[in-house]
Amino acid sequence: MRCLKITLAYDGTDYVGWQWQENGRSIQQVFEQAWREVTGEERRATASGRTDAGVHALGQVVSMTTTNELPDETLLRALNANLPRDVVVLEVAAVPEGFHAIRDATGKRYRYVMQPGRIPDVLARRYCWFVPHELNADSMGAAAEHLLGRHDFASFQTAGADRKSTIRTVTDVQLRRAAGPLLEQIVFEIAADGFLYNMVRAIVGTLVEIGRGAQPPSWMEDVIQASSRKLAGPTAPPQGLFLVRVDYE
Amino acid sequence: MRCLKITLAYDGTDYVGWQWQENGRSIQQVFEQAWREVTGEERRATASGRTDAGVHALGQVVSMTTTNELPDETLLRALNANLPRDVVVLEVAAVPEGFHAIRDATGKRYRYVMQPGRIPDVLARRYCWFVPHELNADSMGAAAEHLLGRHDFASFQTAGADRKSTIRTVTDVQLRRAAGPLLEQIVFEIAADGFLYNMVRAIVGTLVEIGRGAQPPSWMEDVIQASSRKLAGPTAPPQGLFLVRVDYE
Repeated sequence: MRCLKITLAYDGTDYVGWQWQENGRSIQQVFEQAWREVTGEERRATASGRTDAGVHALGQVVSMTTTNELPDETLLRALNANLPRDVVVLEVAAVPEGFHAIRDATGKRYRYVMQPGRIPDVLARRYCWFVPHELNADSMGAAAEHLLGRHDFASFQTAGADRKSTIRTVTDVQLRRAAGPLLEQIVFEIAADGFLYNMVRAIVGTLVEIGRGAQPPSWMEDVIQASSRKLAGPTAPPQGLFLVRVDYE
Repeated sequence: MRCLKITLAYDGTDYVGWQWQENGRSIQQVFEQAWREVTGEERRATASGRTDAGVHALGQVVSMTTTNELPDETLLRALNANLPRDVVVLEVAAVPEGFHAIRDATGKRYRYVMQPGRIPDVLARRYCWFVPHELNADSMGAAAEHLLGRHDFASFQTAGADRKSTIRTVTDVQLRRAAGPLLEQIVFEIAADGFLYNMVRAIVGTLVEIGRGAQPPSWMEDVIQASSRKLAGPTAPPQGLFLVRVDYE
């Protein structure tokens, strides 16, 4: 048995998310089907985390065990030939036995793209949240700084999640204006040792309240302190969210 | 009667092109329908030029005559509320009587996006041509310089077109590497006083022959001199092409 670390990118628009669901096609499903076509093996793929319906990935990581002996590059090409046009394998790498995409992850980076203004960017609509207001990026950047460090992020966890601890350490935040295909975007990035369910989208909903002037930047600190999902902003929609990278030792 | 200059952007993926067709939905059709909803007028919209099926626009220009008296901003918002999600009005401006989007255009700028390499960028696939080779951007840039100035561009005109003269003046070319959503792209831009049918896509097909090393940069000059469509490269696919801008006096 060999252990492989497989890096995937996907456009989540037409999927119910990473995980198998009754109600539609998942990334996991098309990946496992391609795997079976190529290797003949019926295997469950383990991803670093579930991405929700409509969420994209630039660098999702999947761990697989296999008896297949195809060279990594051959396996990559064969998998890509059997995957739909919106899912692609970026890298196949041999890793030590016992590697596990969830358990061994030491951190993740997410990106969230907003497009503020009075006119939606029709060429970016699958890949951003159109916010029909002006947004003050300076206020949002100042608010985002409050996220840095070790905090209880319970305020940004969707109810019903079952994680034992809601304490996480945010190691980096960035907020910048960027050129979109047609109109200007605001891009938020956040890296942490782990994320709660819907955490990035709840943080972005909170940042947008601040960006449109409904709350001051210091409100972010109040929301964190409150440890209550009720105080934070609404959950931002999925199409602006990208899993950028998963880190391992 | 008032005369209006209306600037549109669209994602051409799901359309048969600008012009009404028997076999599917056109941009012109959805625009004229939105116009009728908003103004009650049955009017034919005149665009600066037809874009083909799958081609995008960042700044298509349409001229309309109307008896409608809505303020420009109100008209813009009302049209956008009645257009599908992949077509948007960017600007409505009053212009002198007699303004005509085709006749009065003094120049246009197009962009063509290529994505070279062994792995397709799944987040850019609607908006670029995936070329499964390495491409030498320096060679392509050197070749593109030969396009500058006044030439007979008959070599880049698809047969069956009925334009009287095939002489055009190219006023600017640019070729650059750019970051795509996931992987690096090569972006070609060209501005001219006018373009022949399929001219940009035939030029790009020729540039790619040079970029992949099948021909030297000087081949571009040979192709121009030959005045024969047979010598040039293949026509590049539509999804990489963007009408960036139309210029008027």
